[in-house]
Amino acid sequence: MKIAVINGSSRENGNTDALTQKALDGIPFTSFYLKNYKINPIDDQRHDEGGFVKVDDDYEVLIRQILQHDVLIFATPVYWYGMSGVMKNFVDRFSQSLRDETLNFKKAMSEKKAYVITVGGDYPRIKGLPLIQQFQYIFDFLGTEFVGYLIGEANAPHEILSDSKSLGDALSFNTALLKHTDK
Amino acid sequence: MKIAVINGSSRENGNTDALTQKALDGIPFTSFYLKNYKINPIDDQRHDEGGFVKVDDDYEVLIRQILQHDVLIFATPVYWYGMSGVMKNFVDRFSQSLRDETLNFKKAMSEKKAYVITVGGDYPRIKGLPLIQQFQYIFDFLGTEFVGYLIGEANAPHEILSDSKSLGDALSFNTALLKHTDK
Amino acid sequence: MKIAVINGSSRENGNTDALTQKALDGIPFTSFYLKNYKINPIDDQRHDEGGFVKVDDDYEVLIRQILQHDVLIFATPVYWYGMSGVMKNFVDRFSQSLRDETLNFKKAMSEKKAYVITVGGDYPRIKGLPLIQQFQYIFDFLGTEFVGYLIGEANAPHEILSDSKSLGDALSFNTALLKHTDK
Amino acid sequence: MKIAVINGSSRENGNTDALTQKALDGIPFTSFYLKNYKINPIDDQRHDEGGFVKVDDDYEVLIRQILQHDVLIFATPVYWYGMSGVMKNFVDRFSQSLRDETLNFKKAMSEKKAYVITVGGDYPRIKGLPLIQQFQYIFDFLGTEFVGYLIGEANAPHEILSDSKSLGDALSFNTALLKHTDK
Repeated sequence: MKIAVINGSSRENGNTDALTQKALDGIPFTSFYLKNYKINPIDDQRHDEGGFVKVDDDYEVLIRQILQHDVLIFATPVYWYGMSGVMKNFVDRFSQSLRDETLNFKKAMSEKKAYVITVGGDYPRIKGLPLIQQFQYIFDFLGTEFVGYLIGEANAPHEILSDSKSLGDALSFNTALLKHTDK
Repeated sequence: MKIAVINGSSRENGNTDALTQKALDGIPFTSFYLKNYKINPIDDQRHDEGGFVKVDDDYEVLIRQILQHDVLIFATPVYWYGMSGVMKNFVDRFSQSLRDETLNFKKAMSEKKAYVITVGGDYPRIKGLPLIQQFQYIFDFLGTEFVGYLIGEANAPHEILSDSKSLGDALSFNTALLKHTDK
Repeated sequence: MKIAVINGSSRENGNTDALTQKALDGIPFTSFYLKNYKINPIDDQRHDEGGFVKVDDDYEVLIRQILQHDVLIFATPVYWYGMSGVMKNFVDRFSQSLRDETLNFKKAMSEKKAYVITVGGDYPRIKGLPLIQQFQYIFDFLGTEFVGYLIGEANAPHEILSDSKSLGDALSFNTALLKHTDK
Repeated sequence: MKIAVINGSSRENGNTDALTQKALDGIPFTSFYLKNYKINPIDDQRHDEGGFVKVDDDYEVLIRQILQHDVLIFATPVYWYGMSGVMKNFVDRFSQSLRDETLNFKKAMSEKKAYVITVGGDYPRIKGLPLIQQFQYIFDFLGTEFVGYLIGEANAPHEILSDSKSLGDALSFNTALLKHTDK
């Protein structure tokens, strides 16, 4: 099973990264840092004659790479109680992929498993729940199996590594992921 | 009372626009179409020495204009069960404003009233609820009064104008807004 | 179309009643006040040999009456951010109906349309949303179409009748319901 | 620190019990099985002259016992995407306690810490989230600190003990609780 981590942080080596590393300890994966790609906001042309116009950015190459994987892990800090804007722009572009006949996007996504890893500073295990529900609706729409999620709590850099609850949950996540991807 | 509509659509004259017009019928307001401004994603420098670096885009000028208003109406299509990426990038930048000592952002926001207007195509009155809850947490953090929201249902362009439930709710929203801003 | 209102209030003539009357103005319906029936809490015997034992209360007669209707309106005050305990006990007993072969409960429910009307005193249009989502999962499980909901705000008796937002929304609800049941 | 487990199951030795035992391994606590007490539904007399009438059941004695504890763990199966009706009737009666001047209920509750443990069979880590949010609003209202929650997945009796994810999370919960109550 090939695992892709889609990372929506604006910083590398932040808490989301650190928790993701813990959660994936001993498991091979490939990271895609969205901030290192040029991804334009969606221009909603679903109802335009001619449909979506080709966009001159990195999205299409990126999504084709990501679709080579079996398991997608969406890793994002909780920014203002949602996924980061960078990740939201990425997800919004799925609308374009849905209409790209060469991609077969929905079928491809329906065969994948998804996880969410998120870290927030303001009571994320409660205030991050709408974000989890939002992902649920996204995966439901695509037919992607939403296998699990991990919510960490941290603010200052590296703080996550001293939060025993986050680390304990990461270990539980790691065990379940190992078991799941071992098949 | 001065009303600003912060519009996160990627299209003008779409359903979100149409519903917003209905909801604000007879009430003066100023629109800000986020897509017409250059707004970079947040670069999280909260913990960097020196803090946030000045960003060369339109955000700062825009937020200062918006803060001149008493009532903020966030109008966004439901994209993938959340606000549009364009609006999310705008909101993410609030983190920067919070650290801009010349703005007094949190105090300013705590004196405003906020509304949300959103239109979705996939069962938005249920699947849009995490978005409403996300806004609730945003406004709670800022101390902004979240007075109300309006959820419309539509897909194809102009469809909203034939959805009697959306129009009925817009009328109820309009009456409440009029009463509220009349003081 | 036959409409049943399943009322979970502990008081008659309370705000939930008043809002329901407004919402159903001009539309024939039958009320069932749960508090007037003896409904025991579920005794989870799903996994017992022999399954559920017949319970000596009013639930079974009541559910058979309710199932004679095409549209079910669950009307409950928001008590502690959920449906009333009386209504929860009623809903919990659905587990028993699911196993009653003479009822064909799930099929019957899958052919019905459902609405929720609820009134709360503590910011119900936000803090009542988990209750709406809970109903969504209930109806999803049963295959019942969750057509719409109405949230009113009131505390003291009869207060709902002076809340213009609740009344405006009730009117919009009424129009949509009329249109819907007119077919 | 004295810990009370308020158990809303209709069965003893069910999955909720088993997970609670795991989560509390090595930690002293006192269980209160709500099903073993007579707890009437609330009769909303908040607005009656004279207020609430004394109810002839076990609630008042029970709540006084529970209030002797510092940490309250609400343990309930997920029934129809909410707490059990038995637990809901118990919580609904808080309205009465709030008006009992001899109890000082809100102050007492504001000094306590609360946890939720819940087990469901239908995708509870997603579909149980409205229940967690409902508890958040309950504890927010009372000023009770909502320290954490644990969601287990199981259906048939004893199934929880073979769900490695639930057990891993219970271990993480246990460690955090130990650390927290050790002070």
